[in-house]
This record gives sequence, structure tokens and C-alpha cells, in this order.
Amino acid sequence: MVTAIVLMSVNRRRINDLAQELADLEGVSECYSVGGSYDLVALIRVRRTEDLAELVTGRMAQLDGIERTETLIAFQAHSRHDLENMFSVGL
Amino acid sequence: MVTAIVLMSVNRRRINDLAQELADLEGVSECYSVGGSYDLVALIRVRRTEDLAELVTGRMAQLDGIERTETLIAFQAHSRHDLENMFSVGL
Amino acid sequence: MVTAIVLMSVNRRRINDLAQELADLEGVSECYSVGGSYDLVALIRVRRTEDLAELVTGRMAQLDGIERTETLIAFQAHSRHDLENMFSVGL
Amino acid sequence: MVTAIVLMSVNRRRINDLAQELADLEGVSECYSVGGSYDLVALIRVRRTEDLAELVTGRMAQLDGIERTETLIAFQAHSRHDLENMFSVGL
Amino acid sequence: MVTAIVLMSVNRRRINDLAQELADLEGVSECYSVGGSYDLVALIRVRRTEDLAELVTGRMAQLDGIERTETLIAFQAHSRHDLENMFSVGL
Amino acid sequence: MVTAIVLMSVNRRRINDLAQELADLEGVSECYSVGGSYDLVALIRVRRTEDLAELVTGRMAQLDGIERTETLIAFQAHSRHDLENMFSVGL
Amino acid sequence: MVTAIVLMSVNRRRINDLAQELADLEGVSECYSVGGSYDLVALIRVRRTEDLAELVTGRMAQLDGIERTETLIAFQAHSRHDLENMFSVGL
Amino acid sequence: MVTAIVLMSVNRRRINDLAQELADLEGVSECYSVGGSYDLVALIRVRRTEDLAELVTGRMAQLDGIERTETLIAFQAHSRHDLENMFSVGL
Amino acid sequence: MVTAIVLMSVNRRRINDLAQELADLEGVSECYSVGGSYDLVALIRVRRTEDLAELVTGRMAQLDGIERTETLIAFQAHSRHDLENMFSVGL
Amino acid sequence: MVTAIVLMSVNRRRINDLAQELADLEGVSECYSVGGSYDLVALIRVRRTEDLAELVTGRMAQLDGIERTETLIAFQAHSRHDLENMFSVGL
Repeated sequence: MVTAIVLMSVNRRRINDLAQELADLEGVSECYSVGGSYDLVALIRVRRTEDLAELVTGRMAQLDGIERTETLIAFQAHSRHDLENMFSVGL
Repeated sequence: MVTAIVLMSVNRRRINDLAQELADLEGVSECYSVGGSYDLVALIRVRRTEDLAELVTGRMAQLDGIERTETLIAFQAHSRHDLENMFSVGL
Repeated sequence: MVTAIVLMSVNRRRINDLAQELADLEGVSECYSVGGSYDLVALIRVRRTEDLAELVTGRMAQLDGIERTETLIAFQAHSRHDLENMFSVGL
Repeated sequence: MVTAIVLMSVNRRRINDLAQELADLEGVSECYSVGGSYDLVALIRVRRTEDLAELVTGRMAQLDGIERTETLIAFQAHSRHDLENMFSVGL
Repeated sequence: MVTAIVLMSVNRRRINDLAQELADLEGVSECYSVGGSYDLVALIRVRRTEDLAELVTGRMAQLDGIERTETLIAFQAHSRHDLENMFSVGL
Repeated sequence: MVTAIVLMSVNRRRINDLAQELADLEGVSECYSVGGSYDLVALIRVRRTEDLAELVTGRMAQLDGIERTETLIAFQAHSRHDLENMFSVGL
Repeated sequence: MVTAIVLMSVNRRRINDLAQELADLEGVSECYSVGGSYDLVALIRVRRTEDLAELVTGRMAQLDGIERTETLIAFQAHSRHDLENMFSVGL
Repeated sequence: MVTAIVLMSVNRRRINDLAQELADLEGVSECYSVGGSYDLVALIRVRRTEDLAELVTGRMAQLDGIERTETLIAFQAHSRHDLENMFSVGL
Repeated sequence: MVTAIVLMSVNRRRINDLAQELADLEGVSECYSVGGSYDLVALIRVRRTEDLAELVTGRMAQLDGIERTETLIAFQAHSRHDLENMFSVGL
Repeated sequence: MVTAIVLMSVNRRRINDLAQELADLEGVSECYSVGGSYDLVALIRVRRTEDLAELVTGRMAQLDGIERTETLIAFQAHSRHDLENMFSVGL
């Protein structure tokens, strides 16, 4: 499983529509409108890196109104009560 | 439910330990080490705003090695196949 | 009560009109034109997070001339002579 | 009346104590811990500019743990249902 | 007397004309074209805050070619051989 | 006459003392504590460039508590009702 | 051999096409779409500096959709098991 | 194969030693000292994401003198004369 | 003699033509296309400050394709084997 | 001939001494203290890239008080009245 957090600054007039269009994309598990220096945050969970490339540089890149993105690709997930201390996200 | 995404730049030598300490905090649902201009991302899901304040300015603020944080508080969650189009996170 | 401080850079020609349009929005308690690296600051006080989402990503996003915003959502209010030391804003 | 909004990045370990120390200063009407790229926001309302100078470069400058501040001095307040359209803050 | 220093980045083709238009505004005491990360600096000295608001968000905001401004409002003037050590600008 | 505007971020605890020390330097005609993203602004007017070099990289550089400076050297002064349209500062 | 790493922010809609157009240029040995604060990274390996100038300011500059670039020119290559400790890239 | 480009600002006195220490790490295929706003660039090619995590947050994080890093994780490699147009890096 | 270093970000398609147009201006002694976060660097050596103003805000400001400039005005030149240790550039 | 422009922010107390130490290094043809967002600018002209590496990451890196550098390596020199229009710096 590949996990990525996509931070987006967007055209303010499209914020609600964009949030819904993003949430509707396969591979986007959650999409939040947020306070702070970004407008939207999308959590992406896909099977393979190929899916991430196809989603971020393919389908997301075609949406209207995304002005700036920063994609944070997870290379390790840490979770509570984790006996082995850490496990890879299997990216 | 209150959701927040906390972006962190941390002391590189503490990155793995910190990730685990964060993941072990009640209220932190996931913690990722990531590529990009931040080092760690924590997803927070708590019941009430009081819990968010207590977690971010209380317990997280006491951890060693967090150098800079940006807390993105969600004010709306968007999810797929959502008949009502949008629902509030109940923040 | 949910409190947020919205920092805005705006189209200079619209600064006075925008300030008044913002001040006229329900939920905006005060709006200031300021010196420094922002042009306008709006103080928002609404009942529920749903109202904040509707105000910031809905009505404010439709105004003309806002070029960049940073929304600081308060998660705790501190006030003078406060016997309990701190109380939540009830966000 | 002079109004100023002071945005602060602070030493994370001192965030709650600082917020209370700020709130206790005469001239600080409200102090919030916030999400976003600042940690604390103080609203200042004083009688005269002399009071602002004395508060910001005098008493606030002596507090421990404030790392970076940006002081936004209001030069005009806009409020709802304002028949005269705008009135000066009397700065 | 209210003093403010306005730092401006401007459309390069309008730099000389703008400098003169600014210098001709009542309330602007001096205007310099400068090297560094700004193009023009205007020194403003007006009687009251109302005049500052009217000048910066009114007349200056209507000039062509100003792309970015940062207004530094003085809250205290310090001068040489000053027996009282400091005096307020009477802002 | 050479004119320069020096923007300074300073150690907050030294802000008032520094302002006075700067104001007391020969060549500094005015020094302001300001709101915005700088703390102090010094206006320098000296006879020759040699004096500017000696002041900025010599005497000012020895003062305690100046953390960051940006020196804007004027290469042209524009003034009101100026029949010749522009005149050089004689830098 | 001259080596340079070119970091690019590009028009999101052209990201995949641009990546391929870059990869097809003689002198570009590899081109990656990446997560983080840039969109594309091109590795350039050419014979002489003249070739680098011709490639970066000539052919690459004519491609559509590159919005911002930062060219990092290598002045030394370090490689593993290198008995002489370091050798120049022969730039 | 997972590819990442790590941009580093480092302690200037350790630049040559660090470059060699990085180049000697298994998984770092090349390391360059570069001109521009970074000091060193390391190209990483490892088998699995687990190896990337172990290298970047483990072994590299223990080296002395790395002050700031930005890790660009490739999610797609584009190469010349590529009949299939694009292929995934198999990240 | 007045010396200034002008750092420029330019429209990529005009980079080579602009470099030549700049080099052809009287007062520009050298012009380089460079790697790093700027595209072009012009070295200016003129007799008097008036000439610098006329060149930078006059003739250079009329050229097509210069998007951002930062002018570094030298206030002192240091040279090797300099018995007097330092001499002013006679700015 | 390899040409590079090195922009430096330095410890203010060391500015004059550093300027002289830099000017005394073989390969540094000129060193200026400047106004703007850097403190010192060194022009480097050396025979081969090896010399640039040795100078920038070797001898310059050992000097006290240089806090941040940006090295702009020229890949093309443009000069006036140049019949061939452009010639490479022979980097």
C-alpha cells in the first residue's frame, strides 16, 4: 500500500467543488478543507506506485483550479502499540 | 470528531523515535515519515476541540526534537459517493 | 463558539470595498485594514464548525479581489484574570 | 483606540504558559492558540500609540519564549451595518 | 504625527513615473528608488491615522503598477541626543 | 548626499536600547520601531559612500542584538512639485 | 563530462508530456516526476559547458509549461570506494 | 527500483567529508557538490521502500553536518526513445 | 566608479536574447547566464550614481522579459594584496 | 576560464575582515560588500572546474563567519559588440 498526503492551494471559488471532485477520485481516501497555509488536503492510498503516478500526474492534474500542490510521499508508517516498533508502508 | 493534519520538521537524529512517540499518543491515529519539505505528518482525530488543544499544545509540545510544526485543522471532510455532497467533520 | 482569524492579501484597488463586504458578512465580527505583510484581517466568531466552513469556503470565497488567505483557527482562548487558567473556546 | 493583531511563533514548550502571560498583560484583550503557521495570536486594544509601543517593545518583549512576531497595526476598522461606511479606529 | 515606511515592488516599466506620482501625493514626504529586494520606498508623514488610511488604502491603491507593498507603521521614533531617551511619534 | 533605508530584525529584548543606540550613531538621521515583518527601520543620510560603508559594515555591525538587516540604498530621490521631474541623490 | 540537476515546477496539465519531451532531449540522461516541492527533475550529462548552455538556455527554454527552474551545476562528483577520495567531474 | 533525489544544505566545513560519507553509503549511487541554493545532491537507488526509509531516516540521519534536506521521491521515470512512452520506476 | 550586481529572473524563452541586449547596454560590463535561483547576472560599472539610476530604472526597465530583479549596490570593494586593507569604490 | 558569482550572508561583526580574507584568496578576482539581501559578493575566475571546487568547498568553506552562500556558476558570458553574438565561458 502506497500512502501520500497532497497539500493544495486552490482557486478559492472552486474550493468546495474541487474538494468533492478530489474525494470522488479512486485512490483518494479522504479530502479535507483546512485552515492554515493550504486550502485542501487529500489523503491518497493506492496499491502500487504506478497508481500514484497515474492519479497525481494524470487524473488530479486535469482538475480545474488547483494552483499549487506539494505531494508528501510516505516512506514509513508508524502506529500505536506496534510491537515491532515500525513497519514499512510497503510503498 | 475533530480532524487535524500536523506537518513537522524535526531533528533528523530523532526522526524514527519521534515518529513512534507521536504514534503512541492517544488522539494520533497515524504518523508517517515523508519525503518533501516536511519530515513527519501526524493525523489527529479527537472527540472535542479541548482534546486537540490538550494534545497539540500540551503533550506533543513536550516531545523532544520537533523544530517546526504547521497544524492544519480540518473544517470540512469530503468523501466519495457522498449523497449529501458534503458533511461537516463535526468539529 | 468557534473563533478564527483570517489574514488576507487582496487586490489593492478593492481593499476598502472588500473590507466593508467582509464586515457585512454574518459571522465576521470585525474587519481591519492593517499595515504589515497582509492587507486585511477578519475576526470570525460563529456557533459551530459547520458555520465556519460555510463562511470561509462558501460566502467569503465568492468575494472579488481576495488573492491569498491564511485562516488561523483558534483552539483555545486565554483571557485575563482567569481563575481556571485556561478554558476551551468550545470549538 | 489603537488596535493591533500580533502573530507569534513561540517555543512549543512554553505555548500554554506564554498564552496565559500574554492574556494577563494590560492592553491584550484576547489571546488565542491557533492552528496554521503561527502559534499564538494576541489582540491588542490600547488608548494611545504610546501604550502600544510600551506594550509591544516593552512588556511583551521581556516574555520568555517568543521567537518571532509580526505586528499588524490596524489603521481602519470596518463593521457591519455601518451607515457611514467606514470609520477610523482613531489610531 | 503618524509616520509609515511603505516598501513597494512595482512594474519595472512604471518605476520612474510611479516614483514621481507617489512623491506628488500629499502625505508622502519622500520617495526613493532603491536597490535591494524592493523597488521603491515612500516615507509617509501625516497628521492622523485617518489620513494614513485614506492615503494608503485610498489614493495610493489607485495608482497603476504597484504590485506588492509592505507598510511599516512606526510606533515610536528614536532620535539622537534625546534627553528623555524616547518619545512617541504621537501616532 | 547618500541615502539608505536599513530594515532590521532584532533581538526583542534589546529593541528599545538598540533603537536608541542606532539613533545616536552619526549618519543615522531617524530610527523607528515599527509593526510589520521588521522591528526597526533606520534612515541613513551621509556625505559619501565611504561614510555609508564605514557606518553599516563598521559601527552598526558592532551593535548587539541585530539579527538580520536589509540595506536599501537609494539611487534616486523623487520629491513633490519637482520642476526637473527627478534629481539624483548625488549618491 | 558536465553534470547538472535541473529542478522544475511545471504546469500541472503538461507534466507527463513535458517529462517525455525533456527525456527525449539529447543531453538529458534521466527525467523523473517527483513528490515534494518540485514537479520534475532532469539529470543532465553533457560533454562541455557549451552543451549545457545550449541545452538549458536554448532547447529546454523553448518547451511549453516549465514555470520555474533551478539548475544545480555539479562541480565535484563523489563516488563510493573512491581511493583518491574525490575526483573532479571534469566540468 | 525506488529512486529519490535528496537535496541538502550542510555545514560548510563538513561539505567535502560529508559528500564522501554519503557516497560511501549503500543505496547512494552518486553524490554531487553543487552550485545553487543547495550544497549537496545525493541520488538514491534502492530495491524497496523499506530500504529508502532505512537509508534516509536511519543511516543518513546519523551523519554530522546535514542541516536541511528535501527528499524528492520519484514516482515515474521517463527515458529517451521509450516506445511505451512512460514506464513506472517500480517504486 | 559605482559598481552594482544585478540578479535577474527572466522569461526563459528570452534568456539568450536578453543576455545579449543587456550586454550591449552602456554601463553593463559583463552579463552571465547562470545556474542557481537566478537566470542572469549583470555587472554594472558606471561613473556616477545618476548613471546607475538612469541605467537600472531607465534603459534596463524597458527591456522585455525581465521578471524579477535584485540590485546589489556595492559600497566597498576589497581587492587582493591591498596595502591599505580596504578602499572605497568611490561610489 | 570558469566564472562564478558567490552571494554570501555573513556574521555582521566579521563583514570587513571576511571581505578582505576572501579578496586575498587566489581565484577570487573581486569582493564587494553590498546593500540588499546579501552582505558580500565574490567574483571567482579560475582556470578549471577543479579549481572552483577546491576554492568554494575547500578554502572558502574554512573561513569564519560565512552563514549562507549561494553560488551562481556562469555557463555563458555575453559581452558587448560581440561579433559572434555569444561565446562560451569555456567552463
